Amino acid sequence: MTDQLIIFDTTLRDGEQSPGASMNKDEKLRIARQLERLKVDVIEAGFAASSNGDFEAIQGIAKAIKDSTICSLSRANDRDISRAAEALKGANRGRIHTFIATSPLHMEKKLRMTPDQVFEQARLAVRFARNLVADVEFSPEDAYRSDVDFLCRVIEAAINEGATTINVPDTVGYAIPELYGTFIKTLRERVPNSDKAIWSVHCHNDLGMAVANSLAGVKIGGARQVECTMNGLGERAGNCSLEEVVMAVKTRRDYFGLDVGIETQHILAASRMVSQITGFVVQPNKAIVGANAFAHAAGIHQDGVLKARDTYEIMRAEDVGWSANKIVLSKVSGRNAFKQRLQELGAQMESESEINAAFARFKELADRKSEIFDEDILALVGSESVARENEQYGFVSLSQHSETGERPQASIVFTADGKEVKSSSDGDGPVDASLKAIEAKVQSGAEMVLYSVNAISGSTESQGEVTVRLQRSGRVVNGVGADPDIIVASAKAYLSALSKLQSKADRVAAQG
Amino acid sequence: MTDQLIIFDTTLRDGEQSPGASMNKDEKLRIARQLERLKVDVIEAGFAASSNGDFEAIQGIAKAIKDSTICSLSRANDRDISRAAEALKGANRGRIHTFIATSPLHMEKKLRMTPDQVFEQARLAVRFARNLVADVEFSPEDAYRSDVDFLCRVIEAAINEGATTINVPDTVGYAIPELYGTFIKTLRERVPNSDKAIWSVHCHNDLGMAVANSLAGVKIGGARQVECTMNGLGERAGNCSLEEVVMAVKTRRDYFGLDVGIETQHILAASRMVSQITGFVVQPNKAIVGANAFAHAAGIHQDGVLKARDTYEIMRAEDVGWSANKIVLSKVSGRNAFKQRLQELGAQMESESEINAAFARFKELADRKSEIFDEDILALVGSESVARENEQYGFVSLSQHSETGERPQASIVFTADGKEVKSSSDGDGPVDASLKAIEAKVQSGAEMVLYSVNAISGSTESQGEVTVRLQRSGRVVNGVGADPDIIVASAKAYLSALSKLQSKADRVAAQG
Repeated sequence: MTDQLIIFDTTLRDGEQSPGASMNKDEKLRIARQLERLKVDVIEAGFAASSNGDFEAIQGIAKAIKDSTICSLSRANDRDISRAAEALKGANRGRIHTFIATSPLHMEKKLRMTPDQVFEQARLAVRFARNLVADVEFSPEDAYRSDVDFLCRVIEAAINEGATTINVPDTVGYAIPELYGTFIKTLRERVPNSDKAIWSVHCHNDLGMAVANSLAGVKIGGARQVECTMNGLGERAGNCSLEEVVMAVKTRRDYFGLDVGIETQHILAASRMVSQITGFVVQPNKAIVGANAFAHAAGIHQDGVLKARDTYEIMRAEDVGWSANKIVLSKVSGRNAFKQRLQELGAQMESESEINAAFARFKELADRKSEIFDEDILALVGSESVARENEQYGFVSLSQHSETGERPQASIVFTADGKEVKSSSDGDGPVDASLKAIEAKVQSGAEMVLYSVNAISGSTESQGEVTVRLQRSGRVVNGVGADPDIIVASAKAYLSALSKLQSKADRVAAQG
Repeated sequence: MTDQLIIFDTTLRDGEQSPGASMNKDEKLRIARQLERLKVDVIEAGFAASSNGDFEAIQGIAKAIKDSTICSLSRANDRDISRAAEALKGANRGRIHTFIATSPLHMEKKLRMTPDQVFEQARLAVRFARNLVADVEFSPEDAYRSDVDFLCRVIEAAINEGATTINVPDTVGYAIPELYGTFIKTLRERVPNSDKAIWSVHCHNDLGMAVANSLAGVKIGGARQVECTMNGLGERAGNCSLEEVVMAVKTRRDYFGLDVGIETQHILAASRMVSQITGFVVQPNKAIVGANAFAHAAGIHQDGVLKARDTYEIMRAEDVGWSANKIVLSKVSGRNAFKQRLQELGAQMESESEINAAFARFKELADRKSEIFDEDILALVGSESVARENEQYGFVSLSQHSETGERPQASIVFTADGKEVKSSSDGDGPVDASLKAIEAKVQSGAEMVLYSVNAISGSTESQGEVTVRLQRSGRVVNGVGADPDIIVASAKAYLSALSKLQSKADRVAAQG
């Protein structure tokens, strides 16, 4: 047993499966780069066999990331596993993570297989994967609700076939810390060859205990890998949150006695990037990364809090990347300063021409907005990356007017497949009028299920960042748009969401 | 030891202390009514001695609420305790909750008192409180970081003087479930008269473990009261979340074996009310009450999720109040239907004239918006309640225009102390222009630290609900405004925040 706790981040796989959190290849690559800067040990980059988009994203990340192990999920069959191995070919270190459900409910209702069939398929899948890569992780899905005798049998076989990591998911978030910790301990004691693998925990947050359960799996159970996501992103109530589990192990090193390799000062930047790309807001009272978590660092100065700061804080805000919101650039800043700041923010760009394009957008923004914050720069790069994707719809210009007692009006010009389209509409408000004008021409028939705006640096002089979530025939996509004019940002977000709705292929859903 | 777990909600006290979450008396009363519908056992309504506003809010709640015990916090001195008793006079059942810090750091740095002085003050405070009310709770603040011998001595004395509940706060969120559970157990074993009081847990979420710590205090430690807040609202990363702790005890009744009296089907309405009043958003991946927690119930239908619904869900969405978003009223709805819906939503109004005023606003909204959702009705009542407060500034009318390539312009008419003021400005966007126009006349000098918009029912046809957070000289206030026109909603929110900034008196900060 090592003293090192392995941090396995699955923001790009389990996190991205969250309805509305889907990301494109470029967005995933940006997050992967930030995870590498954080020194995450393993990045689960996707589920290669689920779609071509996922395959290409894993392939791109495997080529670009050198310090972290890159992992692909796969079901327990040869086709999925081959696809995962192929996507991982360019990786410095690649891992195949294969899974099959072992709980009575899942075997019967979802797989329609007998326990013996599941056992055999698990065994063969691990064997097949080990012939392709040296690093193989096996997960018995819904392990916590599985029969312990059967589970021990499956895990023993997986280790015999060469699985190097055994992950024990609480797939539905049903566990309680002391029970889950003891469960892992029991498995490790009963499986004869348990010391041949590293044990891993994977907890969901349905009852609000994913972090505590994971830590009990580590402390009581002896697991040495934690599967987690930035901001606790993930289906339903999400996964164990990376920032919370890492800071708990660091802050309570007296109790856990474990090392984690994470460079915690990059946590806040990673959190913001994930929130910005997915459009999933972080609530103010979220631990570690919420705006109020270290209220004084978020620019909120309350007498009592400030005075008693060390009496009430067990962590230093600086250690997770909080500092006063700084004005970093202005319109007199040059290309080199801009490029350097991009690097400091973990937003490297592939080519000089991409930097030039982003710099041009920066200059345009700086003409309209006197103070440029880190968040503005990240948003610039974000919209730049979106624009690169050859989106079907693009924003050109907008004119809108509203006046108390009259019906708001908007006229918009946008591109559809490269051609300019003009449209006008009224609406309940100017945003509604603008989006109705677009919809009048596009006729997507999509239903809007979420609309939200956040000012990028907490003032109306900053850019507004709008998230629009659309749903059509069971598919959910998010569009994000940023502009100092909220109505324009809304139109951009809507056009971006429409483009995603057209372009994204359906894919296989995996849970774990 | 009873089989009943007492739910002590401190949304209105510890939750409201969160920078930016302050509420006025009417808002607190609305939340208290909803907590009573939830069948919360004890409502901590405020800290009577901290300000006249708090005193009056407690007094109002004590008169209006009959089913829940009403509690006021007070420091451990006669003046605070008398004030609490006075505020609670009208209550069916009143409780005084007195506290003093017992950790070395807090005694030395904050109180500048010796342990013996703290011991004596705690003892006398409980004695004094018991002479005024029968139900007295005592909290040794920062208990979890206190010396155990000293803590036992203080608690023993408090029980001897008649404290009926002993609360053991993890004030800084430093605990780990198994450690905190054992800590409570040790205290209960060592304090000779421990069976004379009900033991209570109060956990903060700085490391993401407030819920798990509270439950360990109950299961391992034998506590029978949990202090919690809706949405986990509270300073820094917040308090233990009511919805999570209640649903964990219900869902895992096999393990906890305890009853909770909470009517869980009102949880979602309570969560939304608290979020709407404070402007603190609930993140989509928040357990129980987040939009994705039961994705299908939030109107998100994803094939895989729907198919496998019972394979992945351990709770029923309906049990916590989720149902498809229903169109409940339209412009043909009558006053009785409106009044009945208000009652169903837990938004009772005091008088017929208040209902008439709200109904008039409803009719006005229904003329502009074809479908009226529950959220719209709650927002109506919300803005109604704000308007009742004789705010210094009021919205009259707005005209704004933006066009790509030109600088956005806004003209606004608002009232200041009853007189109409006209002002115009340009800005980076139309919201910026509108707020600059207001600021040009008011000259508050306040800094905006947060600006966010949420569409009330997830579409741009719905009203936009804008939250503006202003800060000046260490004071932080939130203003909320709702309107189908986002620019108008922003102006309303800004004017409301300015009014609060003028009217609210400073008050004493308490933590626990």
